[in-house]
Amino acid sequence: MSAPKGNAIVSQSGGPTGVINASLVGVIEAAQKCANIEKIFGAVHAVSGIVKDQFVDLTNLDADTLNLIAGSPSSALGSSRDKPDVEYCKKIITICQKRGVRYFFYIGGNDSANTCKIINEQAEAAGYEMRAFHVPKTIDNDLRTTDHCPGYGTAAKFVACAVKGDDLDNRALPGVKIDVIMGRDAGWLTAATTLGQEREDDGPHLVYLPEAPVSMDKFVADVKAVYDKLGRCVVAVSEGIRDADGVTWAKKIAENVEVDSHGNVQLSGSGALADFLAGQVKGKTGIKRVRADTFGYLQRSFAGLQSETDVVEARETGRKAVEFAQQYTSGSAIMKRVGQGKNYKVVFERTELKNVAEFTKELPHEFINATGNGVTQAFKDYALPLCGSLPKTGYLATMPRV
Amino acid sequence: MSAPKGNAIVSQSGGPTGVINASLVGVIEAAQKCANIEKIFGAVHAVSGIVKDQFVDLTNLDADTLNLIAGSPSSALGSSRDKPDVEYCKKIITICQKRGVRYFFYIGGNDSANTCKIINEQAEAAGYEMRAFHVPKTIDNDLRTTDHCPGYGTAAKFVACAVKGDDLDNRALPGVKIDVIMGRDAGWLTAATTLGQEREDDGPHLVYLPEAPVSMDKFVADVKAVYDKLGRCVVAVSEGIRDADGVTWAKKIAENVEVDSHGNVQLSGSGALADFLAGQVKGKTGIKRVRADTFGYLQRSFAGLQSETDVVEARETGRKAVEFAQQYTSGSAIMKRVGQGKNYKVVFERTELKNVAEFTKELPHEFINATGNGVTQAFKDYALPLCGSLPKTGYLATMPRV
Repeated sequence: MSAPKGNAIVSQSGGPTGVINASLVGVIEAAQKCANIEKIFGAVHAVSGIVKDQFVDLTNLDADTLNLIAGSPSSALGSSRDKPDVEYCKKIITICQKRGVRYFFYIGGNDSANTCKIINEQAEAAGYEMRAFHVPKTIDNDLRTTDHCPGYGTAAKFVACAVKGDDLDNRALPGVKIDVIMGRDAGWLTAATTLGQEREDDGPHLVYLPEAPVSMDKFVADVKAVYDKLGRCVVAVSEGIRDADGVTWAKKIAENVEVDSHGNVQLSGSGALADFLAGQVKGKTGIKRVRADTFGYLQRSFAGLQSETDVVEARETGRKAVEFAQQYTSGSAIMKRVGQGKNYKVVFERTELKNVAEFTKELPHEFINATGNGVTQAFKDYALPLCGSLPKTGYLATMPRV
Repeated sequence: MSAPKGNAIVSQSGGPTGVINASLVGVIEAAQKCANIEKIFGAVHAVSGIVKDQFVDLTNLDADTLNLIAGSPSSALGSSRDKPDVEYCKKIITICQKRGVRYFFYIGGNDSANTCKIINEQAEAAGYEMRAFHVPKTIDNDLRTTDHCPGYGTAAKFVACAVKGDDLDNRALPGVKIDVIMGRDAGWLTAATTLGQEREDDGPHLVYLPEAPVSMDKFVADVKAVYDKLGRCVVAVSEGIRDADGVTWAKKIAENVEVDSHGNVQLSGSGALADFLAGQVKGKTGIKRVRADTFGYLQRSFAGLQSETDVVEARETGRKAVEFAQQYTSGSAIMKRVGQGKNYKVVFERTELKNVAEFTKELPHEFINATGNGVTQAFKDYALPLCGSLPKTGYLATMPRV
């Protein structure tokens, strides 16, 4: 079946990343060159804009503008948290028909792949020829089938630099420092806090992932053991850290909230988990200096920091989706690693939407250490090439432990 | 009085910064070249190490090691929060006499300048010839007499990049976003969140500083007015934000903490203020999407991000302190601005310790806007040259407001 001629929609969904705009630009520049694509419509705030027929025309954007956008974090087209069902997708198809759209490119995570899948099925059911392609994106790195996800390397670089600096800070003013990292269901980003380590005693000294539940007693005992040994301890904790029963501490805290008579006090805020964990360590060990930070949105949208590898791959992923849409009626543009370590290399492949949609990918067992509180060298070998360059730091080799 | 011959102590105090190591390296490399200085002792964890006679020998550090340390955040010698009184300083002088120390270089804030002053006075009283010099350092930028403080430009660059990215994130997923910035008593760093602004509607749209108290009603009304106009609102808040009566919200929250029966729940943690403010806006305006982040230690110790201007000035400040110690018996190495804007230039001068010690410098009135919720162009003109390069971001000019 030869590829149809018509217009294209491109759209960005879910939480922004540092390179989702690079994928957008990849789609645009490949679509501009594609003989079968005429107009390129950017959906304003993703599917929520499509059903309201809100688009911006991207057909003639110049290279300078595209390059500037590719270097900027967050979603230039705006985003949405809507998860379209069949009825919602039928409305999308109606708009596509009205606008002569034959290509649908959706940059997002597993939910977006699922949306593509529904749109593809519904278009087929309606007898309307339209090719729906998914362009992977997520800082969580939890998509199946692809080796890794555009967006992850940049977020990994951010948390690696942040914890690297925080570890030096903790050397200067020793105590316990707890850093809470994004990733509710998968520990990929939390694991990346280790990537800046250069020396044996560099933090984070402990890493807690959703994949490895830990009781509060074990957590506190681990921290105390490191503190007793090094005189300090840096801990990276996923926001999805789970008690031994598998229930997240975030959920347990939220259920125990005490609201004052003015209704002013909340414990469900962004800093609650970090503050709770710091309180536990302080209360149960007697260590005086215990601090906690929650890295928050900086992890996904810090301006001026991109992984050199990630931004190139994200842009290429967008281009490849357009290319694959000339050969297949639907799919997702994924990466396969064909070179390791210093010979790191990926090739781009097309996979079926069903291989990416719905379900997510946890950190595999071989990336988590035996005691469930750290990562393995295998994880570092996997993740380091994705971060691009990381800063080297200096120190005084003769500094005694105080 | 000719400069004495002898050994030198160098020391780093208080909260780390991104360039305090550059000042350390500046002191070391100038001391290495100084004919009157023999050995260079690094005090381990500042004054707390001195009184325990804990030092590392820095005399023969090579240029490669020095350059690597100068590029690294945090205090390579370790830090301390001790504020020495007269008795403490007498102990320091005893150690200095024992070690033949004639030069004392202390990198820190106004408290460190005060420590230098006491040491200088007590050495004189004891008839021991020793020159005590202060090397300014603080991300808070609140030292008197100097045009600005080494450490500020790098922290300013960090918060400018962070809020710039956060503003793009807020465009993609509109709502209210509150960012809590370091600086308990002075708003210099919070004001710097505006430095990445490129477009009329770029955030932060509101800036709250310790110098401009605001009632909760006014705060909430301000946020609502921006949200009603733009459909979104990014707010930068100093951790020292004050109620109309001048009392900080942080203090008011801490006094209203409710502790549950297990003693587990804390509201005095690092995220409490941000979560409280988000709760206020949500509860009083009905706006659905209200988020808050507390930037925390990342502001002072993020690895791999330095202001190009700041790191050069910090290193030169260290060198100048050594140079001035050949001409004067005590003092602080300060900067005076002699060129503005694109012709930005500073010269280094020596000032009396009493001009820097003890008291701090607030943001002047002409840097705060008339409504007390933003900064003026005069502030930006002052602060922009200190940040070095800031990223330019792209956007779609035709994006409609949704």
